[in-house]
Amino acid sequence: MTSRRPPHSPSQPFATLDWTGRHVRLLDQTLLPRKVKYLSIRDEKTMWEAIRSLRVRGAPAIGAAAAWGLYIGTARRRNRTLREVRRNVKTVADYLAGARPTAVNLFWALDRCRAAVEALPDGAAADEALATLLAEAQAIQREDEESCARIGEHGAPLLHGIKGVVTHCNAGALATAGMGTALALFYTAAAEGQRFTVYVDETRPLLQGARLTAWELQQAGIDVRLITDGTAGTVFQRGMAQAVVVGSDRIAANGDVANKIGTMPLAIAAKYYKVPFYVAAPLSTIDPAARSGADIPIEERGAGEVTSFGGTPVAPRGTKVFSPAFDVTPARLVAGIVTEAGVLRPPYRRSIARALAGQ
Amino acid sequence: MTSRRPPHSPSQPFATLDWTGRHVRLLDQTLLPRKVKYLSIRDEKTMWEAIRSLRVRGAPAIGAAAAWGLYIGTARRRNRTLREVRRNVKTVADYLAGARPTAVNLFWALDRCRAAVEALPDGAAADEALATLLAEAQAIQREDEESCARIGEHGAPLLHGIKGVVTHCNAGALATAGMGTALALFYTAAAEGQRFTVYVDETRPLLQGARLTAWELQQAGIDVRLITDGTAGTVFQRGMAQAVVVGSDRIAANGDVANKIGTMPLAIAAKYYKVPFYVAAPLSTIDPAARSGADIPIEERGAGEVTSFGGTPVAPRGTKVFSPAFDVTPARLVAGIVTEAGVLRPPYRRSIARALAGQ
Repeated sequence: MTSRRPPHSPSQPFATLDWTGRHVRLLDQTLLPRKVKYLSIRDEKTMWEAIRSLRVRGAPAIGAAAAWGLYIGTARRRNRTLREVRRNVKTVADYLAGARPTAVNLFWALDRCRAAVEALPDGAAADEALATLLAEAQAIQREDEESCARIGEHGAPLLHGIKGVVTHCNAGALATAGMGTALALFYTAAAEGQRFTVYVDETRPLLQGARLTAWELQQAGIDVRLITDGTAGTVFQRGMAQAVVVGSDRIAANGDVANKIGTMPLAIAAKYYKVPFYVAAPLSTIDPAARSGADIPIEERGAGEVTSFGGTPVAPRGTKVFSPAFDVTPARLVAGIVTEAGVLRPPYRRSIARALAGQ
Repeated sequence: MTSRRPPHSPSQPFATLDWTGRHVRLLDQTLLPRKVKYLSIRDEKTMWEAIRSLRVRGAPAIGAAAAWGLYIGTARRRNRTLREVRRNVKTVADYLAGARPTAVNLFWALDRCRAAVEALPDGAAADEALATLLAEAQAIQREDEESCARIGEHGAPLLHGIKGVVTHCNAGALATAGMGTALALFYTAAAEGQRFTVYVDETRPLLQGARLTAWELQQAGIDVRLITDGTAGTVFQRGMAQAVVVGSDRIAANGDVANKIGTMPLAIAAKYYKVPFYVAAPLSTIDPAARSGADIPIEERGAGEVTSFGGTPVAPRGTKVFSPAFDVTPARLVAGIVTEAGVLRPPYRRSIARALAGQ
């Protein structure tokens, strides 16, 4: 059994993750751009490690990876009855939920798969429950592909007539099961014949911009200029970019946006130079339980990511760091949130509630 | 002949550059923090290369290095007459002026040394001219040591009662002939018994913050947290820092500040979170000929500094970059400019003119 795989974009020659019918095939993003290597994942521990170590990253891709991990982790256990399947689903889901604390899609995907199994009539067979779990993972992957395409369609008009645009981290095909969130706007606008330059923040400490976004945009033939995270201000000051588009790891009910560290100062600089700052994310990124950004837990990373690079120390031995993985951009800096349901505009508490109600 | 060397600070166990009586002894900052190695510089080409390759960096240190370079480059030529000395001074000064385009102290120091030789009566001997050139270089170095100490004294009161402060790049002892500019405030406040944490921007692409500032503050026993350049916004948002202090490579007559790339978005983020942003620099950093930041030439650096990290490639082969070495912080974001003559406050056109007139 293989999942239906529509082309993500005419120019995307890779799949971030996929189900082969026997295992999950997952592009190891920690090796990019040096090496294109796929992992074969057959159990939940390997998937947990892949999520934890950022071999797969990006909120929507993490959601799909978690759903697949839940399926393979459950299927390899003893599942003689529906009751056993449900118990195994709970065990594996609780385990996978600990892989990364900030990405709400992780919990969303696990909850959704678990709810599908819970919703079965109590007389259902164990096989039927496993098939449901598999179908739910496939649906999450397929829906993500489709929502990426919708995000691109809704967002591309925001880029009409621009000469340049800034993005941060990787909210691209590599971050989703589809053609990306923020980068879906670029792929769609480019496919419509627009020509523009994407200024890509390298995105310290893990350099997802340099390693992943520059790579995937170049593969698609889009003009890229890599910049350090401190350079975007000058890009705005000189009138080189007319928009910013980023992804998100979690959006609160009031429109506060958690995304990769460095996003918030980028939004502040954009505001200062009157450049609109857009967030592109599927509705699954919105956490209605988070009333504001203050309710979003922010993961802190270890010192080594900042004090050394590629094995080379760049700071004195023993240097202490402060390294939050994400920051929270206040909603008032966000010009629009591009979702598969359309572009949400301020005031976000209302537009978000309406969009979630309309799902 | 050796220069008088007052202690820069009780805790500073290194000299950035010095005159041994025969050659210039210069700490190769490209090897820090891995290795503490001194270069012996005996000709202007080696000095040009040291300035160009950032073995010595920081506007005031570049000024002193240029003055020493002008002396050693002139002294090794044929100097039978004052006329020959003056011709050699011109040749060497023109050559050294090309090492880096943004640091005004480079031109300032060369002009000052050259003017001292020009000011000699036409009957002066060649030896006297060379002695004048040497004395001028020594004066520049000594005055820088003193102005650093004054900057520390004037600025330390701005840090009273703070818990944390953010700095960018290296405006420390390593950037001057003395105890630094921005870091002079920290050394002085710490010597006065204040306790605070310095959040040090790593400062991509060349990591002066990680390599140099973290190193020299740690040597002085000051509490350091290294952060990526995108993290300062979160430091402000969480109330962890109550001030920012940075150095400058050139200040325009209206108070616009050219400094290491990444400074301007830091100033914008500080303003957004109502954290005062201070610049610490000797008056020699002010370029009255630059009416605003638009008149300051901004050097662009090569792609390799961004596309690789510590020698390891991090971006796909052939990635194009936009890599200005400096940015311009608009004067309205600057709460004060700490100089050896006191703290200048807005409106800067007036306070700067007054300070320069008072020299």
